[in-house]
Amino acid sequence: MLCVGLDPDPSRLPSSLNQEPDGLQKFCRRIVDATAEYVCAFKPQVAYFAASGREDDLASLITYIHEHHPAIPVILDAKRGDIGSTARLYAQEAFTRYAADAVTVNPYAGEESVLPYLEYADRGVIVLCRTSNTGSDWLQKYPSIYPGIEPVYLRVADAAARWNTNGNVMLVAGATFPEELGAIRARVGDMPLLVPGIGAQGGDLRSVITVGCDSRGAGLVINASRSVLYASDGPDFADSFAEGAADAAREMRDEIRKLQSELAPDRAVV
Amino acid sequence: MLCVGLDPDPSRLPSSLNQEPDGLQKFCRRIVDATAEYVCAFKPQVAYFAASGREDDLASLITYIHEHHPAIPVILDAKRGDIGSTARLYAQEAFTRYAADAVTVNPYAGEESVLPYLEYADRGVIVLCRTSNTGSDWLQKYPSIYPGIEPVYLRVADAAARWNTNGNVMLVAGATFPEELGAIRARVGDMPLLVPGIGAQGGDLRSVITVGCDSRGAGLVINASRSVLYASDGPDFADSFAEGAADAAREMRDEIRKLQSELAPDRAVV
Repeated sequence: MLCVGLDPDPSRLPSSLNQEPDGLQKFCRRIVDATAEYVCAFKPQVAYFAASGREDDLASLITYIHEHHPAIPVILDAKRGDIGSTARLYAQEAFTRYAADAVTVNPYAGEESVLPYLEYADRGVIVLCRTSNTGSDWLQKYPSIYPGIEPVYLRVADAAARWNTNGNVMLVAGATFPEELGAIRARVGDMPLLVPGIGAQGGDLRSVITVGCDSRGAGLVINASRSVLYASDGPDFADSFAEGAADAAREMRDEIRKLQSELAPDRAVV
Repeated sequence: MLCVGLDPDPSRLPSSLNQEPDGLQKFCRRIVDATAEYVCAFKPQVAYFAASGREDDLASLITYIHEHHPAIPVILDAKRGDIGSTARLYAQEAFTRYAADAVTVNPYAGEESVLPYLEYADRGVIVLCRTSNTGSDWLQKYPSIYPGIEPVYLRVADAAARWNTNGNVMLVAGATFPEELGAIRARVGDMPLLVPGIGAQGGDLRSVITVGCDSRGAGLVINASRSVLYASDGPDFADSFAEGAADAAREMRDEIRKLQSELAPDRAVV
């Protein structure tokens, strides 16, 4: 259930790689190869490529993953949210141009911003529901001060369940709010959840697996980015980053399996 | 107060231009030159370029506008919404890579998704508040069935007013819901509003100006895209599109001025 987020911050790359024109991509390819056997998905974040005009690197990286690790789906973390013909073009960007298997989308502009993606029945659409940061409480938990009126994020969960006629919808539910993650799980049955916020952001893996798994003891895509990418950050990072990432990914995969097995011993994959 | 949205749909370009590698950009440049004297801003929409990997065309187009029409700001319609370091990279994409004067952003992920943009004190940050489509009602108007509890979109307006310490925040308020546009205006004082939804989407110019202007009878950036870009669509579109766009923009500019002058005769620019 581990997903490695490919958020290659230029300021944190090994300096030898950072000086090469395609260093960003080389870094990601080595992370991918080193961690592939421990993950269920890779999640490249568009901004890390777009900020410096490296969309071609992003496209090449996704092609590389498809060619070398064809069983591992690629989630494009784009979080677009626009309506009508614009949403159709963003879906084309994600699914045709980048050949992503799934894409994250923002629900604020409503159905017209999500439906064009859902028409790609063989691709996944991952709707932001409860993000991992506290600065979104005023909106996503609104109007929580009124007892009995449910928060926005559960309305989004209900909407996503309605939209799921092709069975290709997922939700983003941050690891940092396990109670809310549990409320989302209770609302959407066995819909898979993408869970950011483990590691650098402070989410707790045990809580997430306890409250977040579906009826089969699975159904989570637990993302780790910085804690894997920069696991061996230090003086010899340029030589050790891939090995460090592999170690970090394997440890996290093992920890997830252990927790799954404790919580649902007859179901877990060991 | 007219803004021309640059949403160049490849399927609607003159076929002669569509066959050229930089046809998308040529089309936009001719629209820009033809309409520049009637507008207060241009608003290119990223998706129309990104869907087919034409980010370089988008960058060149913005450079062209800055060079040939330096007094006219460029609003990058990107609607990104991500947090922390990712938001900082999206701000870099908009303001450094594309040199946009302002950018649209999505508030769903809260302050962490907006603050990195606001640090660019000389650039504008335009927060989605009330979009022009009915399919967003369930979220943006939530929980409207409970009397006395205000809707999400007014919470967003309040948040934007709080964030506006550099005086560089605007809000998106759709022309299709004039009552809500008026409620937003009442909430945010003289903060400028970007108003989509006139023309193809059915918004009414008179209503927008009546309820939307600030205390000086101004403060609106009224967007028109398809109704200007494809104004002369027909058999001789390839020859007439720029002239048609100029006519449509001039008529709309004149109509805006006329309505401003009727509603605030001593203030309007004629």
